[in-house]
Amino acid sequence: MTKSIRSVLKPKRKFTVNGRVWMECNGERFFGPGPAELLEGVAETGSISKAAKGMDMSYKKAWKIVDRLNGAATVPLVTTSPGGKHGGGSVVSEEAKELMRSYCNMREAFKAFLAQQSSFFNNR
Amino acid sequence: MTKSIRSVLKPKRKFTVNGRVWMECNGERFFGPGPAELLEGVAETGSISKAAKGMDMSYKKAWKIVDRLNGAATVPLVTTSPGGKHGGGSVVSEEAKELMRSYCNMREAFKAFLAQQSSFFNNR
Repeated sequence: MTKSIRSVLKPKRKFTVNGRVWMECNGERFFGPGPAELLEGVAETGSISKAAKGMDMSYKKAWKIVDRLNGAATVPLVTTSPGGKHGGGSVVSEEAKELMRSYCNMREAFKAFLAQQSSFFNNR
Repeated sequence: MTKSIRSVLKPKRKFTVNGRVWMECNGERFFGPGPAELLEGVAETGSISKAAKGMDMSYKKAWKIVDRLNGAATVPLVTTSPGGKHGGGSVVSEEAKELMRSYCNMREAFKAFLAQQSSFFNNR
């Protein structure tokens, strides 16, 4: 007779299922916590450089992310107007917001998945 | 009006959701692909050292994993009889097999989760 997993694991310890999820485009990392935070920052500050600074990311890396996002979308996700000394402002498009919403929904579903799976391993 | 995420992402690229999951005990990594492979190896070879060698893991690390697993369970998951030159044999208990089954079920559920989430991002 097989024992249940709950009786196999010590009752006073907390067993949880944890993990990470991200989006890939053609098998390469495309969207995850970093790009999500960057887009939020651009939406808030209107500036890629300010958003990058706010999350301790290099301006170069931030631009690479923006380029990658724009390259995978049917319309630009972030548009930047050329500017003077401090560069022009950057705008996050409605389409980018839709991507952020979809990503958030996926994260929420993953949180629910982890909670459900964790419940199978917990004794009480 | 909000666009659907499918119309935002280029149609000829493949968008997928990918990730990793593992089990934690009191917030520390407890069971994942490595321990699962180790237990399978011990069950097959009857030896922790052979199982470790088969997956290019040090004997010391293999023992640490076995100790951690045994410490979290109500009964030993791997029992080793003291032996001579090559050490005694090791046996994977029914309880360990139950843990492996539960872990496999969780992995399968995660695979299904990834497939379902991926389908939301794909244009066709």
